[in-house]
Amino acid sequence: MPSPNARPGDIIGCRQPPFHSTVSIQKIRRINSILLLLRLLSFCFTLASSIFVSTSTSWLDSDSFRLVFAANAIVAVYSLFQTSASVHEIVRESTLLPELLQLWFDFAHDQVLGYLMVAAEAAGMGEAVRKRREIDTCTVDNNFCIQVYIAVALGFVGFIFLAISTVVSAFRLAFFLLSGSRFPHVY
Amino acid sequence: MPSPNARPGDIIGCRQPPFHSTVSIQKIRRINSILLLLRLLSFCFTLASSIFVSTSTSWLDSDSFRLVFAANAIVAVYSLFQTSASVHEIVRESTLLPELLQLWFDFAHDQVLGYLMVAAEAAGMGEAVRKRREIDTCTVDNNFCIQVYIAVALGFVGFIFLAISTVVSAFRLAFFLLSGSRFPHVY
Repeated sequence: MPSPNARPGDIIGCRQPPFHSTVSIQKIRRINSILLLLRLLSFCFTLASSIFVSTSTSWLDSDSFRLVFAANAIVAVYSLFQTSASVHEIVRESTLLPELLQLWFDFAHDQVLGYLMVAAEAAGMGEAVRKRREIDTCTVDNNFCIQVYIAVALGFVGFIFLAISTVVSAFRLAFFLLSGSRFPHVY
Repeated sequence: MPSPNARPGDIIGCRQPPFHSTVSIQKIRRINSILLLLRLLSFCFTLASSIFVSTSTSWLDSDSFRLVFAANAIVAVYSLFQTSASVHEIVRESTLLPELLQLWFDFAHDQVLGYLMVAAEAAGMGEAVRKRREIDTCTVDNNFCIQVYIAVALGFVGFIFLAISTVVSAFRLAFFLLSGSRFPHVY
């Protein structure tokens, strides 16, 4: 009969290793540093993208470019929050929210905002290509077109870093659900 | 010193439970049935979406509608393949590819095709809204607009099922990497 305090992954009748061994603390630190870097890169690229699109002329006239701005701004704010959360975790060695909630929060937001970003970039790219082909906006105002292309490209790079973070968050959450720790113990 | 045959999650010096206990076989079967249902639903909706968009007039003139067709057709073919793979797994009780490769294959394709789907639906929706507002296509040929809206909506529902499959695949893969089995053992 399992004890009421047993966590998933506990082996009944066996001595459990310490909750966080030295090796897993090192691993957690390494993964946290990688995530911090990914969040920071994602923040820089999405911020740059939203600035680029919002300083271009007549971006407010187009739903798609407004979506590009909104998605990039949302992800920039989110990435900044996650960057601070990562720094907090590295310095204080504890998560901002309770650990399980934090892991679900990270994974769910990464996944949903990833879909939002790719949708926005696709809509923006579609609009930019159409403007070039059909309306000849680019012959009239070439700077506008270049700015929009750069904004979409920057946003796409930001999305790539977010997508990598998503995979890391998914694995962290799954490992935590299974073993009560974010990383497999090393024996 | 761990034995060279030790899998991640093995506890040295403890009797290991059987590789697949009766309870975990039941769990694997239940999750396989859920995945089969998700794949089948995803197949139906993406197939319907690609048929809807391809039978509408003048869809070939628009890059965005071509993208909607292509993404839905690709995901329909992929979902059909995954449906057969699920049936094979349920009937034969073994995966089509070697287990780890199969789990990576499922997760990677689910994730990437999810992004493709949401990008295509966003581009298609942007184009449909623009056609209604700017060009008055819908007053000339209202059937075309209705068909495109239905196609995008069907594709979006297909994407939702694919996104749920992605989460299941990610967890299955992470559990397998950690414990050598797709689901936590139940003691």
